[in-house]
Amino acid sequence: MRIPAPTRRSVYASRTPIGRIRDMIDEFSEQSPSRFAILIFTAMILIFTVLFSLPVSQAKGAVTPIADALFTAVSVICVTGLSTVDMATHWSVVGHIFIFIGVQIGALGVLTLASILGLAVSRKLGLKSRLMAAGDTNPMRMRHGAVSEGQAVRLGEIGGLLATVAVSSLVIQLVIALLLIPRMLIDGVALAPAITDSFYYSAMAFTNTGFAPNAEGLAPFENDYWFLSILMLGVFMGSIGFPIIYVLSRNLKKPKRWSLHVKLTLVTSLILIIAGAVLYIVLEFDNPKTYGDLNAGDTIFQSLFLSVMTRSGGFSTIPISDLNGSSLLVTDMLMFIGGGSASTAGGIKVTTLAVLFLAAFAEARGNESMEAFGRRIPGDVLRLGVSVVLWGATTVAVSTIVILQITKAPLDFVLFDVISAFATSGLTTGLTASLPDSGIYVMAATMFMGRVGTVTLAAALAASQRRQLFRRPEERPIVG
Amino acid sequence: MRIPAPTRRSVYASRTPIGRIRDMIDEFSEQSPSRFAILIFTAMILIFTVLFSLPVSQAKGAVTPIADALFTAVSVICVTGLSTVDMATHWSVVGHIFIFIGVQIGALGVLTLASILGLAVSRKLGLKSRLMAAGDTNPMRMRHGAVSEGQAVRLGEIGGLLATVAVSSLVIQLVIALLLIPRMLIDGVALAPAITDSFYYSAMAFTNTGFAPNAEGLAPFENDYWFLSILMLGVFMGSIGFPIIYVLSRNLKKPKRWSLHVKLTLVTSLILIIAGAVLYIVLEFDNPKTYGDLNAGDTIFQSLFLSVMTRSGGFSTIPISDLNGSSLLVTDMLMFIGGGSASTAGGIKVTTLAVLFLAAFAEARGNESMEAFGRRIPGDVLRLGVSVVLWGATTVAVSTIVILQITKAPLDFVLFDVISAFATSGLTTGLTASLPDSGIYVMAATMFMGRVGTVTLAAALAASQRRQLFRRPEERPIVG
Ligand SMILES: [K+]
Ligand SMILES: [K+]
Repeated sequence: MRIPAPTRRSVYASRTPIGRIRDMIDEFSEQSPSRFAILIFTAMILIFTVLFSLPVSQAKGAVTPIADALFTAVSVICVTGLSTVDMATHWSVVGHIFIFIGVQIGALGVLTLASILGLAVSRKLGLKSRLMAAGDTNPMRMRHGAVSEGQAVRLGEIGGLLATVAVSSLVIQLVIALLLIPRMLIDGVALAPAITDSFYYSAMAFTNTGFAPNAEGLAPFENDYWFLSILMLGVFMGSIGFPIIYVLSRNLKKPKRWSLHVKLTLVTSLILIIAGAVLYIVLEFDNPKTYGDLNAGDTIFQSLFLSVMTRSGGFSTIPISDLNGSSLLVTDMLMFIGGGSASTAGGIKVTTLAVLFLAAFAEARGNESMEAFGRRIPGDVLRLGVSVVLWGATTVAVSTIVILQITKAPLDFVLFDVISAFATSGLTTGLTASLPDSGIYVMAATMFMGRVGTVTLAAALAASQRRQLFRRPEERPIVG
Repeated sequence: MRIPAPTRRSVYASRTPIGRIRDMIDEFSEQSPSRFAILIFTAMILIFTVLFSLPVSQAKGAVTPIADALFTAVSVICVTGLSTVDMATHWSVVGHIFIFIGVQIGALGVLTLASILGLAVSRKLGLKSRLMAAGDTNPMRMRHGAVSEGQAVRLGEIGGLLATVAVSSLVIQLVIALLLIPRMLIDGVALAPAITDSFYYSAMAFTNTGFAPNAEGLAPFENDYWFLSILMLGVFMGSIGFPIIYVLSRNLKKPKRWSLHVKLTLVTSLILIIAGAVLYIVLEFDNPKTYGDLNAGDTIFQSLFLSVMTRSGGFSTIPISDLNGSSLLVTDMLMFIGGGSASTAGGIKVTTLAVLFLAAFAEARGNESMEAFGRRIPGDVLRLGVSVVLWGATTVAVSTIVILQITKAPLDFVLFDVISAFATSGLTTGLTASLPDSGIYVMAATMFMGRVGTVTLAAALAASQRRQLFRRPEERPIVG
């Protein structure tokens, strides 16, 4: 059941100028959190486009062309990890600092915004916020009811949320970096670059960006399974989503207190990671260009690494274009699904996929409602999921058709890089780096649609509500 | 709301042996119409596999290899139109007669079965059958209620339905053939082949199979726009679905009496045909291999022809492999959607697509229910639609991955031929004809899944019903 939106009138007007500005931001972010999110992302991208085009950001002190500067800004703020220039050599130290700051802002931004949107939406729907209520599954508290002004998300709360996200993010990145430093030293890296590169790798892993600081990329560490495992941990922590990290940090050993969202995200992610690894083993074990020369253990580990990276880490130990076409398609599907909601990963999100399958299971069993872990999932969640998938499929289809027409490149590569852009995965067949300017702009738009679009779309749709004054007669078309 | 299934007990037991057999078939087809459909299709495919492997069916009097005979049988019974042998030269006159009979059985079978399943399902759900009730949109008659035995589909009714379908099919094919004969004569074909080929083309058009009787295929007629237009008409009539033909033949000039299903099918089909034609014009007007040398009028007509054929006629005036990659992907999408429900076309069906988008529109507008043409569509229709799409996407994904791994061919061609097989379109990039035996079996399975699977799946799912004894607590995961 949908609830009519409350009358929009600020009851907390301040008298000081600063208070008024805060009230204005409050009101805008509360009335239209989706537009607020789009505005913030667009502003950040424009600022970083300017920063990246400055000569001081470039290694040779030259101006970076506008298409490359814009693409890098979108890729950094959307934590995508695709590039049209050689990221390790094109930028100066200042440029690399901008990149580091950019992915932190992008990651914090998307985590905070997604959390705010989730908070705003669940409040607007008159539901007890599921986000911060670790494991609170008391159905009595989820009653529908009128929304009071006091339930709106206030700037103070946003500040609190931002602080929580920032602290969690900082702690995780610090731990990952500290774990990476000794491995780098063992692998023969000097102390100074070992420290800076570790923090850079840690940031690129947790934010799911996937840029490497060093010119050789992961090559020096491709046989250091400790190093790669720590990277996987960082990517997984980033891709699982802030709501999960929040709940697990409080109730790690009390699975009974985990919410449906936590269970659904963890189980679906685990299934996808294992299924991906198994498929890569089966499809690549005899491919001489990839895992053909590896022993069983190495094949399993590298397949697992690739599987985790599709969700949407973006690091790779092999050239992606060497994969079989079958593996490329598997990767396409895994990237399109992406990670958890309110995470640094992209895609349609694992819970969206889970809800679609739960609907099919319910239909097959003839159940009235979708069910999972002893809970009933309301039907409007399916509609939201279908909307997100249609948005993703349409974006990918349009972008792929345009890029195919511009480049006349094979579908294998175009579809891969487009889905990588949409799902902010950052894995690439090499196509993105060879695009003409027109293609670069299309890919930049695809990254923006994928990152900002999916985060805001679900919120915008879920928040829309209309009182229906009359009930139309029912009629049932034949489908299938 | 789901209704518990009525107790299954035959109240119409006969005493004569023939009566008992009829009762048994009655009861089986009524209790499990989906299994009945699968059984009939499988039996037909096995019979025709034997017929096609006989030396008498082959032009040179040799035995056709089992893989090719099976593939042809599946392709004919599923009215797909793909082939692993040269259809015009491989078969003898007897073989061609088997093909002609096979597509008639396949088309009648799918039309009748889909109609029966629709009938059975709507009765089981306790709804007034929408299928035969031309334009009956009185909401009072669509009340939910207990199902009485008298409402079950009886064999007599199946016979009546089969007769109606057969007569409609015969009339349409006759009219199309009579329209084609003069055009063939004008194009310089001799009288005897003009007559037989016209009937063959008419059958191949209406059944949406797409085989040509002559070795040169459509080449002699590619500039005869009357000929091509008549073919398009035949394909459209076949692909729109029997429920639409039935309603339109009675209420062509009274759109107010058209049911929601009729309106939704017609509007969605029209949008897809026009959108397809426009996209082909935009993507192919400067392709020297396809429409690059044509004037504006010819480009528009040929684009329209190709667009209609994706739904799922299977005739083409140009080699499909000459299309741009972008056009191939557009064709993939159009073929995957397919035609109307209970038609000779394949795919997920246009109403399924429409329901997904109506759900997204309802979500975006914040409406409680999906709405179209002043009618409310119940939420379980969306679940059914999602199930059909998941079935289609999974079948296509698995088949594509396997064929990619077997052939190492480019994704453009593999995806195209797999979707063509799933959606029984019959258009081909040439890949199918060059497959090894393992690939042929995979493609045959894909055709079967696409044809029999989608028709029976929707019915099986819609018919499944379970009384839920308790209501679980509600919980809402975050999606998107
Ligand atoms: K990434
Ligand atoms: K066909």
